[in-house]
This record gives sequence, C-alpha cells and structure tokens, in this order.
Amino acid sequence: MSKTVHFIPDNVKITVEDGENLLSAAATAGVYVPAYCGGDGVCGRCKVRIKEGEVASGSSGSLKTDAWEQGWRLACKSKVVSDLVVEMPPEKGRDGRIHQRKPKTTRAISPRSLDALIGKWDVDPPVQKRFLKLPPPTIDDNISDLQRLLRGIKKGCYDCAEPTYDHPELLQELPFILREADWQVTVILLRGKREEEPDRIIAVEPGDTTDALYGLAVDIGTTTVGGLLMDLNSGKVLAEASAYNAQIAYGEDVISRIIYSQRSGGLKTLQEKVVYTINEIIEKMCRELIISPSDISYIMAAGNTVMSHLLLGIDPKFLREAPYVPACSQFPLTRAAALGVLAHPSVRLFLYPSVASYVGGDIVSGVHACQMHKKPEVTLFIDIGTNGEIVIGNQDWMMCSACSAGPAFEGGGIQCGMRASSGAIENFHISPDTFDPMIVTIGQVKPRGICGSGLIAIVSELLEAGVIDQQGKFNKRISHPRIRSGASGYEYVLVWADDALEDEDVVITEVDIDNLIRAKGAMYAGYQTLLEAVGMTFADLDRVILAGNFGAYIDLERAICIGLLPDVDRDKFYYLGNASLLGAQISLDDHKRFRERSTVSQLITNIELAENGEFMNHYMAALFLPHTNISFFPTVQEKLAKVE
Amino acid sequence: MSKTVHFIPDNVKITVEDGENLLSAAATAGVYVPAYCGGDGVCGRCKVRIKEGEVASGSSGSLKTDAWEQGWRLACKSKVVSDLVVEMPPEKGRDGRIHQRKPKTTRAISPRSLDALIGKWDVDPPVQKRFLKLPPPTIDDNISDLQRLLRGIKKGCYDCAEPTYDHPELLQELPFILREADWQVTVILLRGKREEEPDRIIAVEPGDTTDALYGLAVDIGTTTVGGLLMDLNSGKVLAEASAYNAQIAYGEDVISRIIYSQRSGGLKTLQEKVVYTINEIIEKMCRELIISPSDISYIMAAGNTVMSHLLLGIDPKFLREAPYVPACSQFPLTRAAALGVLAHPSVRLFLYPSVASYVGGDIVSGVHACQMHKKPEVTLFIDIGTNGEIVIGNQDWMMCSACSAGPAFEGGGIQCGMRASSGAIENFHISPDTFDPMIVTIGQVKPRGICGSGLIAIVSELLEAGVIDQQGKFNKRISHPRIRSGASGYEYVLVWADDALEDEDVVITEVDIDNLIRAKGAMYAGYQTLLEAVGMTFADLDRVILAGNFGAYIDLERAICIGLLPDVDRDKFYYLGNASLLGAQISLDDHKRFRERSTVSQLITNIELAENGEFMNHYMAALFLPHTNISFFPTVQEKLAKVE
Repeated sequence: MSKTVHFIPDNVKITVEDGENLLSAAATAGVYVPAYCGGDGVCGRCKVRIKEGEVASGSSGSLKTDAWEQGWRLACKSKVVSDLVVEMPPEKGRDGRIHQRKPKTTRAISPRSLDALIGKWDVDPPVQKRFLKLPPPTIDDNISDLQRLLRGIKKGCYDCAEPTYDHPELLQELPFILREADWQVTVILLRGKREEEPDRIIAVEPGDTTDALYGLAVDIGTTTVGGLLMDLNSGKVLAEASAYNAQIAYGEDVISRIIYSQRSGGLKTLQEKVVYTINEIIEKMCRELIISPSDISYIMAAGNTVMSHLLLGIDPKFLREAPYVPACSQFPLTRAAALGVLAHPSVRLFLYPSVASYVGGDIVSGVHACQMHKKPEVTLFIDIGTNGEIVIGNQDWMMCSACSAGPAFEGGGIQCGMRASSGAIENFHISPDTFDPMIVTIGQVKPRGICGSGLIAIVSELLEAGVIDQQGKFNKRISHPRIRSGASGYEYVLVWADDALEDEDVVITEVDIDNLIRAKGAMYAGYQTLLEAVGMTFADLDRVILAGNFGAYIDLERAICIGLLPDVDRDKFYYLGNASLLGAQISLDDHKRFRERSTVSQLITNIELAENGEFMNHYMAALFLPHTNISFFPTVQEKLAKVE
Repeated sequence: MSKTVHFIPDNVKITVEDGENLLSAAATAGVYVPAYCGGDGVCGRCKVRIKEGEVASGSSGSLKTDAWEQGWRLACKSKVVSDLVVEMPPEKGRDGRIHQRKPKTTRAISPRSLDALIGKWDVDPPVQKRFLKLPPPTIDDNISDLQRLLRGIKKGCYDCAEPTYDHPELLQELPFILREADWQVTVILLRGKREEEPDRIIAVEPGDTTDALYGLAVDIGTTTVGGLLMDLNSGKVLAEASAYNAQIAYGEDVISRIIYSQRSGGLKTLQEKVVYTINEIIEKMCRELIISPSDISYIMAAGNTVMSHLLLGIDPKFLREAPYVPACSQFPLTRAAALGVLAHPSVRLFLYPSVASYVGGDIVSGVHACQMHKKPEVTLFIDIGTNGEIVIGNQDWMMCSACSAGPAFEGGGIQCGMRASSGAIENFHISPDTFDPMIVTIGQVKPRGICGSGLIAIVSELLEAGVIDQQGKFNKRISHPRIRSGASGYEYVLVWADDALEDEDVVITEVDIDNLIRAKGAMYAGYQTLLEAVGMTFADLDRVILAGNFGAYIDLERAICIGLLPDVDRDKFYYLGNASLLGAQISLDDHKRFRERSTVSQLITNIELAENGEFMNHYMAALFLPHTNISFFPTVQEKLAKVE
C-alpha cells in the first residue's frame, strides 16, 4: 500500500511505499531538510512537524517532550505509515532571514506500468514435463525402453516431431527408472532453440513430478550476480537472490578481470569463481524453497561479453586488444553441470548472445525484454556503468556502442567514492541559502562515502546552487566553512568527521567532479555519435529506456542537469531496472518470446567508439555542465538562469 | 590374376587366385586327395602329377627324385602359379581295386560381382573439410571469431543453413588457431543425421588440411572387431585391421558377457575392453599410414545389440530377461572420446540402430548394405553364428528373428571344436571307397581341431558317404579303423595323434553331430517361421544372402546337404562376407545412403522365436539330416539315393 506525503509550505506531494523513511521521502520529493548525519539520528537537524497522519518513530532522539507533543519528529527516524501532511520548519539564511525555498522538481517519473514497454508474456517455458503411464513390455511388444518412452510421448501429440535424446547417461539409467517406477514416469522435454528443432528428452523421473518444474534466470554482472528461481508451471517468481561476483577479488571491472585471466591459472580461477557465485545463489534459493538444485530444469543466463567468455572458460584476451574481437557472440547451449554449475547433468544453460566485445548478452537481454525489436518507436536504450552501453533503434534497425565511461558512476576514482552499499550517500540536497547539506545514506546510517547516484545528486545540486560553475570549478567567491581548499584543490565538505562513520571528513573535490564530467561526457557523446550515424537527433527519439540497477536509482532531473541524459520530454523516459535479469526471466517463461531473441542480435549493428573521430569531437564538447552547447539542454538553461 | 586348374581324370576345372595352395584348390573343387596331416607335408599322401603348367613347391617332402622328375608333387606343398592340368593318382578301394570317383559338386558360386546386390555408392561422406581464407578483423569488421568463421563457411554456399557448433572447447581454441594460422584454416563439418539438421562444425585446423580426410568403419563383433580406415576424399580403403574383442576373456558369447556385466565393476570392464580393442585397431592402422588417431574425423560403427549396449556403458541386463527389451535401439550420436576411444574430442561415433535384443546394428548395417529395403525381390538375409539372425523381406516389408543356434557353428560345444584359426580343419573330403579323409587346415599346418565350416564339411561328407545316417548316427555295419566307439559314443577319427598338432586323435562324435543338427535345425525352423508369418514358402524367395564371415566360408552344397540352407536354385545365393562392416563402410562414404538407414530399421518387424509355438514345431521337424520332410530338399534326396 502506498501513502501520500504532502510537504508544506513547499506544497509538494509524493507517493511512497508504506514504511518509507521520511527523510528519504523528502529528499526524493526534492524538499530540503537539513540533515548532516545521513539518517543516523545523531545530528538532530532534520526536525519536521507532522500536521496530519501518523509516523512510526524509532526514537525521539534529541527532541524535547514539548516538541514531541507538538508533533515534531526527526524525519530520519520516522517511517511513513499513513498519508501525511508534513510541515517543514522555516529555513533561515546565513543572515537569519527566512527565505522562500526555490521550487524543486520532483523525481519526474511515477512508477509507471511497464506493461506498455515489455508487453505481456505467456507461461510457455523452454522445458516441459509430461507424465506418462507406459504399458509394460510383453513378448509381442518388446520394443526398446527408449522407443517405448518416445511412443508414450508421441501419443496425444500427433503433430510433434519425435523427440531426440541426450547423453548416454540417460540411456544408462532409463531401464532401471522405468522398472522401479512401474512404467509410470515423468519426462522433462527441452524444446528446440529454433522452431524446426525437435524436442529433446533431458531427463526421466520416476512417478508424476509434473507439479515441480523449476527454472533459473541469472544475470551475471561484473559486480553482482542476481538470480530468480521460477515456477515454470505458473510463471511465478518463487525466490530471488543475489551475491557479489566472487571474481571481484581479482579485479573490480572487466578490464582488470581480463588482465587477471592472462596470468597462469587465471582463466580457470575466474571461471570457477563465477560458477561458485552462481552456485551460491542457487543454493540459497533452493534452501529457501526446500528443493534440490537438481530440480531446476533450465538455466537462462545473461551477462556481458567478458562475463560470458569467462563463464564458458573462453580466453577473453582478444576482447581487450584492438580490433576488439570476441571469440564468440552466439554461445552454445551448454550443459550447466559441465561448467561446474550445481545442476542435473542434462540441464542446459543458455547464455544470451553478445553483439560485440563491450555490448554483451545483458544488453541483448534487456533490449529483448523491452521489445524494441517489435516496435516502430525510435528508442534510446541506456545501461550506465563503468562501460555505458547504448542502443538506438526500433523494429527495423538498431545501432549500439559501448562508451568507456570510467568507474565514476560506480563510485570509483572518486576521493570518497564507494559502491552503493550501507553508508553511501545516495541522495543529497543543498540549501541554496545556507549551503548546508541534506545527506541521505543507504541504510540510514552514518555516512561512509559517496556512491554513483549520490555523486550525480551532489554535482547537480552544487551546480544549481551556484557552488560550482559549468566547468565544475568551485565558486571561490562563496565563503563557507564547507567550501575549502583541500589536498586535491577545492572541495565541499559533505559530512564533518564527527558525523561520519570513519572519523574523517567526507568531501567532494574538483577532481571528483572532473571525473564525473568525463564519465557523463562519454555517455552523451555516445548518444550523439549513434544518432548522427543514422542521421537523427534527440528530437527523433520516442523513448529513452534506462536499464541497469544504477539506472533505477538515477534522479532524472539531476542526470539531465549534469548532461548525463538528454533534455527531452520527461514522459519519454522509462526505468527498466535490471533489464538483463528481466529479459532472462521472460525468456524462461515464454519460449515463443525466447525464440525471437535472435532477431534482436541480428538487428543490432555495433559501432566501435574507441577510435571514432566523431565520438572524440562530441566528447570534448560534452566536458561541461551540462554541455558546451547549452541549447541542447533548454530546461537546464532555464534553471541555471535563475541562479545567476 | 586367377589361374585355371584342370583336375583329371575327374575332369573338374576350378579357377583360383594366383598362389593358391593346390590341396585347398582340390578340396574346393571337390576332388578327393588323400591328406591326413592338414597340409603340413608330413603324411606324404597327397601326391598329384603336374601334367601341364607349373607349381611352386616349397619342398619335395618325402618324394623320391624319380617321382619329382616325373612331375609328382605334394599338393599340400604346391602353389598354383600358372594354369594347370593335374592328374590324380588312381584311387584304390579297400579291396585294392581301382574305383571310379563319384562326381562331386563344386562350390556352386563363382565370385560374382556384388554390384547388382549392393549397387553403386557415391563418395559423399558425413564429414567434409573446407579450407577458408578469412579476412582478418578490422575495427569496422570486428564480428566475433566464430561469426567470421561461419560467414566464411556460408560464402559460396548460398543454400546451406548456418552450421551449428559444438563444445566450448572449440570456442576456447578458436581465437588462437585463427591467429596462429593467419586466418587460413580448414573447418571440419559434420552433416546432420537427418536431412533437415544443419551442418555442425566439429573442428578447426590451421592451414589447408583438406587433403587429409579420414573416417573409420568398425564392425564390433562379439569375437572380432574389424576396422577399415577410409580416405573420405576418394572413398578408398587405406588400411584394414582386426583384433579379437578383448572382452573374450570375460565370456565367449553375448550371454556370458551379459552375465559378467552383472558383477561388480563388470559393465565398466567390458566397456573398457571393447574400447581398448577399437583403439588397438585404430593405432595399428594409424601407425601403418603414419597419421594420428586425431586425424580421423568420423567413426561409423555397427555391432549387435549387446555389443552396442556395452560400448555405450548401458547395462544389457534386460536383454537377457523375457520379454527381451533393449534399453535403446536407436543409439545417440556419441562423442567417441567420451567413450574412451582415441579420437579428437569432437569426433562423433555413430552406432547402427538395433531392431531387437538379438537383432542388432550389425544386421541392420548388412541389410542396409545390400539394399533389401529398395528392391522388390523377396530376399532371405542370413547371418549364421551362435545367434543366427534372419531377415526376410523387400522394399515393402521385412521380418526378422534371431535363433539361438548354439555355438556349434563357431566350433563351440564340439569335442575337438575350435575357432577358425590356424590348425582348424576347414575343409574335408572322404573317400567313398576307402573312407580315408582329406584334411585341409587353416594355414596348412598340422590339425588341431575342427572349426564351423569344417564341421559342416565333415558331417555332409559322412552323410553322403553313408558313414552316418540321416539321424546323425554312425553306420555300425562299416568296419574301419577310423570308425570306433569312443568315450561319448561312436566317432570318426579325422586325424591320428601322430599327424595332429597336439598328439591326440582329432575326432568327430555322434554328440558333436547332434549339436550341429540342433544348430542347423534352429536356423531352418527360423526361416520357416518367418516365411509362414507372411504366408510364403521357400519358393517365393528371389534371393538368399549369406552374411557374416562364417557365411563366406560355407560350402553351399554341403550346407544345403545338412539342411542348414534351403534347397533352392543356387543362382539365388549371394555371399556378402562381413556385411556389417560393408554397411558401415558404405555409410561412411555416402551420406545420402547413410540417411536411408532409418528406412531399414523402421521397415523391420521382429518376431521373438524363444516362446513361439510354430517355431518349436518346425525345429523338432528339422532335427534330421537334412530334414524329416526330405521333399524340402530334392537335390539332397537325389544325392542320398545314389548312396543307398
């Protein structure tokens, strides 16, 4: 159940999930509340007054009884449990005068049904179970056990081709299973990857086990491996799990993994580590459901090209060397057990095909999920990360590219950067008057550092408040204790050591801002290069889809404000979340949609940006907030004009 | 070059191969020459006089100089090296009078071209090599290595479906092979088992290796494994090899192998032993040709149902238990290396499908070779062994059965029986006057025992000479030192201990004869049962095909004489030799013919004789020489009438 929070006097309304933290809700709504400690409750600044409705408060914190009784609460310690009217305290400038807040934009996109984007899908999985009561053999009907089984399968399925069968192991077990089960067995049939291929018997189980038909969808990310365990009879998700990719110990990003793979035994280690991680999530989910990993009948996986190579034990060496050639882009349907995955020996693992060395199966899976290949609308599909992948196109054509954006979006290369985990500053507002911060951390604990979404929030807020200029340089005319000259040039102190987890100031520096500008510049130059390649401009885009976990946490207005996303109609934007996992999930449920996946990879043409002159020009022009050509960003231009 | 030998005064001519032993030639021609020592030269009885032409004589043996100069030679020590006229010495009866020889039939079938039977086949093998010069990747053309390879294959082959590919190992090697070979490689493509299946890349080799395309045809017999190494570019046989199936140590016949397989570890041992034997012949042939086993690109194998199960490690237990159900009759296309066969990891081994527990892939391969399934002629196909397999039919229908004939045809269950190897009596004549023998052994060495073809010769000769009657009992009215009462009843001494290899008399007993009668009776009852099942008689047969190595050594008249083969027009008989190996060879050469094999196994219906009442009646009636109903054997009736 969602609740509405009405902030006054700003008169901003926001709809949030039941139980949402009130400080986070304010931050998301763009309502500034002073908050220095990230939500830990120690700074005591984030007092708000509940005018209507109720909140669940963990503690009164530093509030006096009087204040409590008057409805004052610490926003960071309050959960939204009913519709609310929340009054913000009057904000005073450094001169002590009360200022009117400047209007903030709210997060532009309300949770919108994804139905329009991804369409409906059927429960018609790549594996099916069929229960057979076979007549026992007699002297007049003594065909082989396998033939008897095939005959049983064909019965009542007159138009189907005779299934093929599998490994000798199946034949080795078959006579005993049939006899022990008194000729009543369940066969698991794997449908052909292509329509014309016959079904394949992958296993035979004694008795009627048709009720239990499970599949696993996996997204093999460089950082995180996520999985869904699906009931393939109902199409429902039974369990979800994710784990850090155990390869992380050997390098944070794909390039360092490739480098590690070139060491003696490195490839083998990396292969084993990703399999270890997949097994970890399989075991976690199976324990939860009290089933055995061998009950899973199909594994549908998607990962970037490097992850896919490593999983199959294919040397990724040449992915990194110009002209960036993968060994393989359509991966063979592999026996999961042969890779070391906890699975029945005949269970197949499908890996989504890649397009190029840096546009992998995760992107194809995502594009497949959102049906770009079936719609006339021109769509820009973006997955932002260390490598930002971009796809532009529709049912008739698609172009893709990868931009090496660097690790800034993942908190890398930033002085106080960190991954999006507990204690990371993920939301930020600045008071345009006091220049004091509103710090919201993941987990509402003391701040430890800045993650990617926090970085975008900080830079856009500093820009809008005039604390930094469009080149990302600090406005030295502002005298404020938080703005100071540090070891790497000017910086803004987000959190004083007292309020921080590690007793050190958490700061953002000009160097950090420069890194972010280069990262977002690469993405924007990528969009431009692809659009130009097909003679289009941003005006031609019908939809912009943000994929990836990071995409899901981006504040749209702020991302546009710094020039990471194009300044187009906000209604054109969609958040798809982990599109790679979603694509795998849909393909696992719906075999007809699965079979269309090859259309996607066949439609997509890759453009290498690494040595592309146009790209370099666009990139240089994009090293500005939001862009050297401000006319590309009319809404930002308008906003910034108010600051001046 | 063949030579003609004209025996006088019998006036029998025979055509033999250059270098043929003269004693063997006489025996084959049905010309009696006294010969007691099997061809070893010690008995000195087989004197003949060369009237025209020349022989190559190893030694003069016991001949005096006078005799030598007059043209006398020991037949057993002479090789036919020119056309000959050979005079036989006048034969004296026990009373000293010279007798006219009774006319003998010659071996009825001259080496006849098999073309009419098996037809022509093309060189169009299941694997093909294609040399590709691929353009190296560039930044504008950086598709994956595999795609580049597939594109190269499709070039110049516009109507072919895109090949599929194989194991991850191929992908693991591919990038390195391509670069080391400077993008000039040879791909080995495996064609689909069915027409609609796409080709499959099974290997990629650096450089142009199209000249070297090898395939292996193997017949996996219970006793012997035979192989042909083929040049698949030319269709020529490059090498032949055979070896005793190393499973023999665990049982002589399929039943004892099944029994052994039920011991702990027994199945594994038997699987390893047959693979060991296959590897033995692979290595032998590869050494001879100076190629590596990994240069072989395809293995086409045929074996009986038990051998096929054991090769694949499938428990044959239920083959032996009523209702005699195989685990599998269509075997999966298996990776040879996965079974332990010395082969490149991706090379496939195809096993001909079985029809039933005792009608295996060897029979299907043989029937396939002789194209029964494409001709209107009603054909009786016979493979005689411990299990005699029988197929009757034509292009419209086929029936098959296995008769458990017992081991007599392979020299088993016979007091002095032995396998057809050096020292085995393989041919025999008796003087109708002196009742003295003419003994011809394999290898022309001292006799050790009797093999299957020798047994048939001996029994038919004893019958025709009136030494035994139609019940197989010795004529006790004949008084002759060679006919005596032994430990197991009456017996005939074929070889006295002095002339024998092992210093013991080599005899044939009434018990032996009885065993043979039961064996041949089972076969004959099998033909009758199958014919009756389709409402036919022997008169409806257009052709009788004798398959199997044993079939190739049978003397047709003698086999008819004892009732093993039906008494039909001799022109209807064909010897096919090792039809199983021939079928594998043809299928290896000609993929179009290979694809027709499924027609064969689909056409054939198996009838179990083990519990068939009709069969039992026919069997009882057949326990007579040649049969209780002599009218089935008019030519034998005529012959025997002369004796009386």
